[in-house]
Amino acid sequence: MSEPKSLHLTAFMRPVSLHTGAWRYPGAYPDANFNLAHLKSFIQKLEAAKFDAFFMADHLAVLNMPVEALKRSHTVTSFEPFTLLSALSVVTEKIGLAATASTTYDEPYHIARRFASLDHLSNGRAAWNIVTTGNPESSKNFGRDEHVEHSERYKRAKEFYTVVTGLWDSFADDAFIRDRESGTYFDPEKLHVLNHKGDELSVKGPLNIARPVQGWPVIVQAGQSEPGRQLAAETAEVVFCSPRDLESAKALYADIKGRATAAGRDRNHLKILPAALIIVGDTVEDAKAKRLKLDSFVHYDSAIASLSIALGSDVSGFDPDGPLPADIPETNASKTSRAGVIKLAEDEKLTVRQLAQRYGGYSGLAFVGTPETIADELNTWLAEDASDGFTVVFPFLPQGLDDVTQRLVPELQRRGIFRQDYEGTTLREHLGLPRPKNQFFS
Amino acid sequence: MSEPKSLHLTAFMRPVSLHTGAWRYPGAYPDANFNLAHLKSFIQKLEAAKFDAFFMADHLAVLNMPVEALKRSHTVTSFEPFTLLSALSVVTEKIGLAATASTTYDEPYHIARRFASLDHLSNGRAAWNIVTTGNPESSKNFGRDEHVEHSERYKRAKEFYTVVTGLWDSFADDAFIRDRESGTYFDPEKLHVLNHKGDELSVKGPLNIARPVQGWPVIVQAGQSEPGRQLAAETAEVVFCSPRDLESAKALYADIKGRATAAGRDRNHLKILPAALIIVGDTVEDAKAKRLKLDSFVHYDSAIASLSIALGSDVSGFDPDGPLPADIPETNASKTSRAGVIKLAEDEKLTVRQLAQRYGGYSGLAFVGTPETIADELNTWLAEDASDGFTVVFPFLPQGLDDVTQRLVPELQRRGIFRQDYEGTTLREHLGLPRPKNQFFS
Repeated sequence: MSEPKSLHLTAFMRPVSLHTGAWRYPGAYPDANFNLAHLKSFIQKLEAAKFDAFFMADHLAVLNMPVEALKRSHTVTSFEPFTLLSALSVVTEKIGLAATASTTYDEPYHIARRFASLDHLSNGRAAWNIVTTGNPESSKNFGRDEHVEHSERYKRAKEFYTVVTGLWDSFADDAFIRDRESGTYFDPEKLHVLNHKGDELSVKGPLNIARPVQGWPVIVQAGQSEPGRQLAAETAEVVFCSPRDLESAKALYADIKGRATAAGRDRNHLKILPAALIIVGDTVEDAKAKRLKLDSFVHYDSAIASLSIALGSDVSGFDPDGPLPADIPETNASKTSRAGVIKLAEDEKLTVRQLAQRYGGYSGLAFVGTPETIADELNTWLAEDASDGFTVVFPFLPQGLDDVTQRLVPELQRRGIFRQDYEGTTLREHLGLPRPKNQFFS
Repeated sequence: MSEPKSLHLTAFMRPVSLHTGAWRYPGAYPDANFNLAHLKSFIQKLEAAKFDAFFMADHLAVLNMPVEALKRSHTVTSFEPFTLLSALSVVTEKIGLAATASTTYDEPYHIARRFASLDHLSNGRAAWNIVTTGNPESSKNFGRDEHVEHSERYKRAKEFYTVVTGLWDSFADDAFIRDRESGTYFDPEKLHVLNHKGDELSVKGPLNIARPVQGWPVIVQAGQSEPGRQLAAETAEVVFCSPRDLESAKALYADIKGRATAAGRDRNHLKILPAALIIVGDTVEDAKAKRLKLDSFVHYDSAIASLSIALGSDVSGFDPDGPLPADIPETNASKTSRAGVIKLAEDEKLTVRQLAQRYGGYSGLAFVGTPETIADELNTWLAEDASDGFTVVFPFLPQGLDDVTQRLVPELQRRGIFRQDYEGTTLREHLGLPRPKNQFFS
């Protein structure tokens, strides 16, 4: 705990941006969803800036939003993560490759195999973002009328993780001897048959692929719910979370690290990387203006629903260009969220339209300022044990990414809180994580 | 039917070869299973030779063979097809990329999405080899104690195909208008929700990816059983089969093309490509010697079981270096196969050991000779309507592949029965297949 900390940075990617208005921003690539050349340039810039990993966000459905919002969203469709990251592995050498894969709607044998394959293809750069898939539309694409209930999803996720990691250990690291003379390709004593039979899953094994280069690909977990935190503390090596501010981040950090210690783990082997939108400007005002401009590309019709949900009240009757009315009723469903909207309206003096555009665009944690002010903030989060780095969300591409890699990163490097170069070759090495021992072979 | 035919050639690949002794052949790359550099060089050579496609063979389990055979087999483990082919798509421009995917142990939403993504990544070069997964070990890796029964697998496969092709048509080709001015990313009138509810599958849709470049990736089907032939005739655009000789190939060809016509399809839109091992030598004798040498690397202990199965009799008591005993009892289980072994022993004057090594190595259709004699044979198969080309199996790599691409292919090109260059950019164009219309949009 007393070793000097430095930042870990991963890029949380949708090809056009996570922000729903970003495709209309001047200079944006609206077709990046299906344009591999753009994605190649993004990941190569991130690698040049020494980012830990490129992290492909994902969903298993066209999201269930009203058609007015849906038709305006570039986030609806894109490449599938395994295929995309495998392609990108060939045009990069060091940067990690994190794919999202669901434990609710997929099979552990497939998941174990694809991540192992990506890890071999990339020479040890794969990471698995374990999700239980909360979007209820997904269940309907996988043969279920009813969405799988939350605690049921987490129970299966835990067992799924046990099976996948067990399958990765099917072969000892030195199983493949390839002795031409005797004709022995691998030592059968170094093959383990899992024979898993649990409440949720029955998987015999062995996996038909050699043990991954990293032993196990890096385990990433999101989720801030009670079972999500516990699963992360027990299994995750990177935790991807969405605290709203420094204080709540510190509490979450302490809680998850404490749970990891309680579970018998080294707290340094679990890196907490909050998601943060980063907007860099020449001045703080310039950066704020960029954000307002970006938000202005969110169509008001598609943003009303987001603000209504955040407030717990239908805002469609409000004057879009007036201030937020003072008499919005309080509901149980959204007490904290409602208070956040009211505070934001006051702090930034936003109209109803601008508020809606913020909630319809990207309303999570954001660092908006100059390279120096943002570096100050990131350093505070690091020093005060609110994070071990960040899962960076770019406001628009390519410029918003260039601003981070070409302006912010050099400032972080100058301060000695971000690497000047990769020291290792695998993602585990970038993150300072140990290579897991094979549980079946010493 | 009267248009001049020319050959289509796909490469049926395992990284080290399908032949189980190939990793011991002089010059082989025994580590190719996990060596992307070798696979890159193979596919680039195949593209330079204008092959239609690179076809990754696959299994969903470590095959259930006796440990004596298993430990000697390089075919047990390798990259997973989607991840491998996505990586290879980046280092090639024209050659098709065919992946095997099971309808029994996967979900149509995942399969539709991954092939669509591979098709976008490769600019229209993906093909789906639809398999129902006959290997009983696979079921145990996917939560089932009992193997799924044959007719049940084909019933699901047909419905699975309907769902996957329906999902590919979720968006019209021109759905994505990306109008920055109005803020409309896609036209919601051009989005189709599948809402499939059938006996086996329930899938709502839409797919969260734009329609594939090829409309649909090319559909490949293996299978020579009655339901396999019928499914192929109704759905396949490439049929991959394993006839033993010219006469049986002609019968199979006529049968499947006839079924396709009966199903209302254009028989030219279904290409029949038998699997064939090709061994090129300076003379016919030289090629035959290469084959014997290759077979000699199959360990006798691991080959006994294969010959015993083919004969329907336990051969472990036979003198390995003597001829096949004359008094082998006939059993119902293997009448045709037994006759084939006896004929092979006579024709090539093989000892019991050599017979076992043939059956333990690769015992399917083979063309073994000089570029000229092999070109004669391939031309006969083409001219006599026994095939539209071949699914080529290489005996050993890289030399066996180089022999085909550098010696046989030029001979085929000289005779005008194989392309000098690609005429199109998509796999459909290489194969002369039409781009399917979207079934939901005109």
